[in-house]
Amino acid sequence: MEAYPVQRAPALCGVWERVSVASLTLACEMRGDRDSNPEPSGHRRNAIRDMVVRGAPAIAIAAALALGVEVSDLDFIGTPGEAASFVSKKLEYLVSSRPSAVNLSDAATKLQTLVSKAAEYSKDSKAIFQVYIEAAETMLVDDVADNKAIGSHGAVFLQRQLANSKKISVLTHCNTGRVIRTLHSGGVLEKAFCTETRPFNQGSRLTAFELVHEKIPATLIADSAAAALMKQGHVQAVIVGADRIAANGDTANKIGTYNLAISAKHHSVQFYVAALVTSIDLSLPSGDEIVIEERSPKELLDSEGGLGKQVAASGISVWNPAFDVTPANLITAIITEKGVITKTDADGSFDIKGFLQPAK
Amino acid sequence: MEAYPVQRAPALCGVWERVSVASLTLACEMRGDRDSNPEPSGHRRNAIRDMVVRGAPAIAIAAALALGVEVSDLDFIGTPGEAASFVSKKLEYLVSSRPSAVNLSDAATKLQTLVSKAAEYSKDSKAIFQVYIEAAETMLVDDVADNKAIGSHGAVFLQRQLANSKKISVLTHCNTGRVIRTLHSGGVLEKAFCTETRPFNQGSRLTAFELVHEKIPATLIADSAAAALMKQGHVQAVIVGADRIAANGDTANKIGTYNLAISAKHHSVQFYVAALVTSIDLSLPSGDEIVIEERSPKELLDSEGGLGKQVAASGISVWNPAFDVTPANLITAIITEKGVITKTDADGSFDIKGFLQPAK
Repeated sequence: MEAYPVQRAPALCGVWERVSVASLTLACEMRGDRDSNPEPSGHRRNAIRDMVVRGAPAIAIAAALALGVEVSDLDFIGTPGEAASFVSKKLEYLVSSRPSAVNLSDAATKLQTLVSKAAEYSKDSKAIFQVYIEAAETMLVDDVADNKAIGSHGAVFLQRQLANSKKISVLTHCNTGRVIRTLHSGGVLEKAFCTETRPFNQGSRLTAFELVHEKIPATLIADSAAAALMKQGHVQAVIVGADRIAANGDTANKIGTYNLAISAKHHSVQFYVAALVTSIDLSLPSGDEIVIEERSPKELLDSEGGLGKQVAASGISVWNPAFDVTPANLITAIITEKGVITKTDADGSFDIKGFLQPAK
Repeated sequence: MEAYPVQRAPALCGVWERVSVASLTLACEMRGDRDSNPEPSGHRRNAIRDMVVRGAPAIAIAAALALGVEVSDLDFIGTPGEAASFVSKKLEYLVSSRPSAVNLSDAATKLQTLVSKAAEYSKDSKAIFQVYIEAAETMLVDDVADNKAIGSHGAVFLQRQLANSKKISVLTHCNTGRVIRTLHSGGVLEKAFCTETRPFNQGSRLTAFELVHEKIPATLIADSAAAALMKQGHVQAVIVGADRIAANGDTANKIGTYNLAISAKHHSVQFYVAALVTSIDLSLPSGDEIVIEERSPKELLDSEGGLGKQVAASGISVWNPAFDVTPANLITAIITEKGVITKTDADGSFDIKGFLQPAK
């Protein structure tokens, strides 16, 4: 694993709201190696695997746009069918970097279908790439709109749920998210607490950067201090993202999310998942079917999440799951761009299929 | 804060079972600065404050013995009363490094009384120091015996509680402890899991070192992965130490202990506190009266628990409590050198006073 400048990544994460494919050259330039490497998409894959880009939807868009940059000035010799196949293989390779990210796999499938259809009626391989680039750009525009919708749905819902508090404080894990931003811009956020998010420190590096950057009053805590924080009554809600949501509402997210959900329940603190509906995988009846990626022991053995020098004792074994699954019964509600999914009985599952059907 | 060689500390922690005051020069030599500094006990104080020495009883013994080294070859000019006062002030200074460590304060009071009494009948200041050194050495011998007793009481109790399992796996936080060692030497330990113990990494540095050193099958996890581990059914018990135990059994221990206790309860995993009775403070009716030390934000902002380079985003606020309080209702039993303190009703408090009275 290479030593990425740890505070550059947010520039890439924040980019979604402003850029078109053209400016995604940024992503490659940041790496400083675009021209020197015969396999540029290998670097995008590394950026995903190494969690330089963080958050399932952002990963999908980053992957799609970065490939857009690659094909936009590619000197490709071949038929439209070969161009479609070229794009398709690149997308498959990117998907393999994060098997649990359903958004990435869904986006790839959508784009693969699109270029494959375009190859049927087009006579020019350049046109295939153009179709691909426009589709990737549309994904970006839609993503921005969807995230804004999550923010407003979430903020309205939280204010209604927590009506007794004039201002509320929330704890987040790994991801600032639109809900916190919207609560802040609406003047109802007292403070955001963010966890360190061990072992790769996404919380202290990226979430903290975002919170400071957006001038949101914010405090960093160790993941293990969350229960003590809740006991003191300092937070009224926990808001987390989702890597994948099963049909019953069980949610896979960054390791430690399940810990927080248990603590939240113990302290009667509301626990919300905020995610795009593309994170929902109705083909999975429950979280038991979600495969959890295990990551390198180095993330725990060495400082800076595996990029620095050895901290842990030599010879110790490591278990380093990237995600855990929070069962639906610990989740108060799931906030999506299409609205908030709630439960009728407090300990039951979510009827996500029912929620999505009328909305579609 | 200086950059201690992170893997040397266990040599100091493991020393209790083998050394007399003389070999405690080790502690000073490790720092390589004994002769160059006019205030040697300042370094012992730093070693305690900076958690190079970890575990409340070990801290008390380390402090007492290290002062023994200092006075053993001190060229002191003064009356016995002045010698007693010299020792007394040094002890007060050491106690101020960790206000929550009741063992340290108790040990200091005991030693202060002893030298003060010795000063009444002695005519030689050297004799005062000799009385002090012998008392400190006796503390060490007693501590080793007490720890062995905790180990055997704990191992017997756990095996009885977990009779269905031939071998058991346990999770520990910040401290290997005698119970795990005794379970291992008795052939009933399947595996020990240890947390990283953020933010100062005592788990990945010290606990992991001890486990590897003693050839105990062991796996390191992120603090935030504990709930996922318990959900998989991989641990039958959590065993933690104690910085201070209130009269009702509420226990202050390293930050994250309370998180683990909540997760253990959620997964019906037994949760044990293993501590010397000197950790019990009957003057505190409950954990609400325990003052929690807050430590430097640097431990979270920089790598290696504050000793390395900046990892967190600049400008973020930090809340870094050193300890949290686990309420008695989350604790299955308290294992001491005098036996195991249990509850009659599952959710009640402990009658520690009642337990201690017949034993005394």
